Amino acid sequence: MYKVQVASHLKFTDEQKKELEAVSDQLSFVYQKDTDADIILGNVKADSLKEYKNLKWIQTAAVGIDNYIKKGVLNEGVILTNAVNVHSSEVAEHTLAMILNMVKKLYLYRDDQHKHLWSDEGMVKQYDELKVCIVGLGDIGNTLAKMLKALGMYVIGVKRTMILKPNHIDELYTSEELDKAISDVDVVVTVLPGNKENENLFSLETFKKMRPDAIMINVGRGNLYSEETLKEVLDNKIIAAISSDVYLKEPLDPSSDLWDKRNLIVTPHVAGGYHLYSAIESFLDLCKDNLNRYLNGEKLKNIVTIREE
Amino acid sequence: MYKVQVASHLKFTDEQKKELEAVSDQLSFVYQKDTDADIILGNVKADSLKEYKNLKWIQTAAVGIDNYIKKGVLNEGVILTNAVNVHSSEVAEHTLAMILNMVKKLYLYRDDQHKHLWSDEGMVKQYDELKVCIVGLGDIGNTLAKMLKALGMYVIGVKRTMILKPNHIDELYTSEELDKAISDVDVVVTVLPGNKENENLFSLETFKKMRPDAIMINVGRGNLYSEETLKEVLDNKIIAAISSDVYLKEPLDPSSDLWDKRNLIVTPHVAGGYHLYSAIESFLDLCKDNLNRYLNGEKLKNIVTIREE
Repeated sequence: MYKVQVASHLKFTDEQKKELEAVSDQLSFVYQKDTDADIILGNVKADSLKEYKNLKWIQTAAVGIDNYIKKGVLNEGVILTNAVNVHSSEVAEHTLAMILNMVKKLYLYRDDQHKHLWSDEGMVKQYDELKVCIVGLGDIGNTLAKMLKALGMYVIGVKRTMILKPNHIDELYTSEELDKAISDVDVVVTVLPGNKENENLFSLETFKKMRPDAIMINVGRGNLYSEETLKEVLDNKIIAAISSDVYLKEPLDPSSDLWDKRNLIVTPHVAGGYHLYSAIESFLDLCKDNLNRYLNGEKLKNIVTIREE
Repeated sequence: MYKVQVASHLKFTDEQKKELEAVSDQLSFVYQKDTDADIILGNVKADSLKEYKNLKWIQTAAVGIDNYIKKGVLNEGVILTNAVNVHSSEVAEHTLAMILNMVKKLYLYRDDQHKHLWSDEGMVKQYDELKVCIVGLGDIGNTLAKMLKALGMYVIGVKRTMILKPNHIDELYTSEELDKAISDVDVVVTVLPGNKENENLFSLETFKKMRPDAIMINVGRGNLYSEETLKEVLDNKIIAAISSDVYLKEPLDPSSDLWDKRNLIVTPHVAGGYHLYSAIESFLDLCKDNLNRYLNGEKLKNIVTIREE
């Protein structure tokens, strides 16, 4: 008998819980914290993992698992699987909506509305003339690229290692060529994991490589730039506007002066996070599949190799 | 020699003006009000048209020409042409951006940002599960429909008269079947002219036919509903939210209580109005073409038949 803790943040319906429980009678499920658990489904606080003495496997609901792969968080031998691909649609859809929102200045019109201001915010850009650079070409980036192509946009991809260029990408660069890739585009989208390698990848110098009329949307992690750099870019209008779903410290402090920047759009880490019913459904499918694999002694899907940084 | 007044709202560059002037040396252009003009390019106040004693033709920059076709506005024999098709892309693009903005709740997150509020606004809808009804299936509606289909949405069209169903429309209804067409969709888009026929077409009863979780985007004209109906729908949450680019009286009065409705998005009649450079370019092309036709005694493009209402 294995005890499975289902993390409380997961919004499974009663019906979905029944589906999960039907996987096998070798599993007993608990829906609250239980440090006796052999298996965890969903995210728990990284610093509480040490308490789980029987833990053999954690199936996180996240893609970015920066907190779990730090040295000493997981006991030796514990398997870590993530939820890569499960979130791709929702993050890509959020990003597309944000691109159009910014390009058409809808957020500025919303601001004007609050001031009771009937004011023309000027020219906007046309979809089939937009050049978009996606930095981080995993499943989210590729899903987004296909939607952008469907609207006639020109898509540049940046990937850590060189691959064969997919059809939905017009130009492909490696990370070493980042400066070149972002130098002549209307939109930069960043979908990078929060590892050491990407820390401060967007320095003030990097931002200065972009066109002043460009916008940026960060749906990766908050360590991509320092708060100081972010403020400098915004205050000096190095680029036109930034939308950031992620921050170095989340939630963003209520007293932060970032909230009041007109050229910064703050969203509270909601691009992913199971805001689509289909994402919850996909995660449920992944859990069922991996539970079956676990019980049958097969290799789990989405195993994350813990590498020391 | 014909005197051509180019309306001052047109944002032609010096280069574009030169292109216009090169059409023929039988034309003399003025860029300010001149009641001696034989021809007007662009929009002038409807009630000033009576002053133009020599006027033979007005090429408006608008599609909706409600003000000009009222009895007595234009002298007998004056030709009226509009700018149908010139604006289609910009209105369709604005509308797509607004649909995604609302479906992904980005305007609510912007409101939260102003309150320094890091708050999850809950589940959102998925593009390829959206059903959209476009009421008014002219060039704008069809352009929009193609973009929606490219993102996997299901598109219902409503047209005054029955036509053969285009491939980019999944279901087609006539105006008589409006209630049925809007009864089970996530999004209703209205792109209707401001004529008597459409006045108050969306009564409180009509809104009640829609699903409570539906949203509506009006980029047609403000006479589609009364202000009273609009407020009732918003205050009683008959549907989830409305975005209106048009109002009965524009600009919307600064003291109007519509500005402060959380479930109303006010934009100041900017969905069209030459916010894309390509739209200005298209209008210039139309003007050149029609000026040539006029001088050669050929039939003009986009003639509007004035029918008494």
